[in-house]
Amino acid sequence: MKKLINDPREVVADSLRGFGLAHHDLVKVHTDPDYVVRRDAPVRGKVALVSGGGSGHEPLHSGYVGRGMLDGAVPGAVFTSPTPDQILPAIQHTDAGAGVLLIVKNYTGDILNFETAAELAVAEGLEIRTVVVNDDVAVEDSTYTAGRRGVAGTVLVERIAGAAAERGDDLDAVTAIAERVNAGVRSMGVALTACTVPHAGEPSFTLAEDEIELGVGIHGEPGRRRMPMDTADAIADQLITPVLGDLGAAEGSRVLLFVNGMGGTPLSELYILYAHAAQVLQDRGLHIERSLVGNYITALEMQGASITVLVLDDDMIDLWDSPVHTPALRWGA
Amino acid sequence: MKKLINDPREVVADSLRGFGLAHHDLVKVHTDPDYVVRRDAPVRGKVALVSGGGSGHEPLHSGYVGRGMLDGAVPGAVFTSPTPDQILPAIQHTDAGAGVLLIVKNYTGDILNFETAAELAVAEGLEIRTVVVNDDVAVEDSTYTAGRRGVAGTVLVERIAGAAAERGDDLDAVTAIAERVNAGVRSMGVALTACTVPHAGEPSFTLAEDEIELGVGIHGEPGRRRMPMDTADAIADQLITPVLGDLGAAEGSRVLLFVNGMGGTPLSELYILYAHAAQVLQDRGLHIERSLVGNYITALEMQGASITVLVLDDDMIDLWDSPVHTPALRWGA
Repeated sequence: MKKLINDPREVVADSLRGFGLAHHDLVKVHTDPDYVVRRDAPVRGKVALVSGGGSGHEPLHSGYVGRGMLDGAVPGAVFTSPTPDQILPAIQHTDAGAGVLLIVKNYTGDILNFETAAELAVAEGLEIRTVVVNDDVAVEDSTYTAGRRGVAGTVLVERIAGAAAERGDDLDAVTAIAERVNAGVRSMGVALTACTVPHAGEPSFTLAEDEIELGVGIHGEPGRRRMPMDTADAIADQLITPVLGDLGAAEGSRVLLFVNGMGGTPLSELYILYAHAAQVLQDRGLHIERSLVGNYITALEMQGASITVLVLDDDMIDLWDSPVHTPALRWGA
Repeated sequence: MKKLINDPREVVADSLRGFGLAHHDLVKVHTDPDYVVRRDAPVRGKVALVSGGGSGHEPLHSGYVGRGMLDGAVPGAVFTSPTPDQILPAIQHTDAGAGVLLIVKNYTGDILNFETAAELAVAEGLEIRTVVVNDDVAVEDSTYTAGRRGVAGTVLVERIAGAAAERGDDLDAVTAIAERVNAGVRSMGVALTACTVPHAGEPSFTLAEDEIELGVGIHGEPGRRRMPMDTADAIADQLITPVLGDLGAAEGSRVLLFVNGMGGTPLSELYILYAHAAQVLQDRGLHIERSLVGNYITALEMQGASITVLVLDDDMIDLWDSPVHTPALRWGA
């Protein structure tokens, strides 16, 4: 294992320290327990959005803390849920009296720990809602999940619900739009290589030189099946077909097409996938209104990618386009 | 070799097609010969900036085409200079009568081909200037270069000179600030793994399981020396010490600290490097005024990183902060 790290047990702490230094104008990093909040939190009158999960998926979630997206992010150990005693202070720190929406990817540990933190917050008189993201069409139930996993769609939920909170929507409205995005988004991924959790020191699985894992999870957990390496176009078909099949978007629908890198794949290859996926959408009579291509939710240094399609409406497009200013996603500000 | 590609000979074309589709609101991709220009080129009255070089370093250079940065980018084959017959039409297409500045990384092939294109453009009556970026302190002369190589500093030259052109500076002024940025920027990189050029099919070099290449070039060409794998802090020291030694910035100087990923390194590891580099700068009495952390100039899927320091002045800070709207770098717009 070769990684640019110091002590494998300190990777999250060391990385958060650099993150806090590089983006001190936007965020405040708290340690012991670890959580990240907007520099200006709590933002008076605004619904607060808090997300989190295991580390190793950067820039998710800490990279999305800032105006127009998250108020707080809670990073666990690598590929390990954050604990309630991390989540609760992030909720308390960001709550401005208008309530807090928790955005949780559907993994059993995350659900449990966010639920516990939510109960503690409610006991203190805070108003809490939770949206569970479960956009991965690859498998029903898997290593760490009952039901579908939450993957790249999470970035879109955080962005669009974050924009709604920023314009002043109340807790019910922000929750409703987060749920609407989750209902209209589907994803599926593929791995060309495994990744190595620093404190484990060994790859979490192995793939042969000519083999890929179709429907892989963002922790390298198994997907639908292994198949021989194929062309980018053929692989894109294997991802986009189940995504569209499950989404069932009507012809003429407007969509956002998101091609996400898992961390170790060159950007140029993501654009090759994009080219074919865009062609497939066009052939199905779907209109690509917005796009996102890059490493937005990763699995450490894994080589691979995922394809996500979100059905858009006018309000979502307005919210998507509104200013966002976070370390990893920024425009209009 | 597992890559998300179709035909290895078509990777640049396939990728450019996806790039053009994903960013059709910002750029226009021309094929045969291949070059990328701003959607609104030529921009009346504005000095045009054209850069380019071998592909495989994405998002450099095509990802930086747009308002406040480049007017045109010319991608060669992977790790291969673009030809004069690609560069010339990019110059012709973007020239708006105010002259064209060519930003060229110091590699022998690039220098030669941009020079030939410049001569042809001058023969047509166009006004052309060239700035050669050579920020890599690792080696004097190397596999593809006489003198120092041009690496991550190129991103900063393109951004700051691009901002100067956008505000209306004339050709002499834009050239002068590009030269000032190049004079005040130094970089050095490290590779943990090699990378594989698609049409070659094999890694361009090999590193043992516990070995790294210090001072590596962005094509995987040799650097200063190979050394055993070490901690992130120790590696950051090996990069930042020569950078600062060569830069010779006075105590109290204001700087931009840029930690760049080579393509296959997780963002979390770049922040670990950043944390240590920032500490070293602070210990030397330098003030970090601006930061950039991410994959901005890559070597395909190589695992590794580079550290860049640029000495800033008031004008550079203003230009850095001004709006930029490109596929890969965006703020204020």
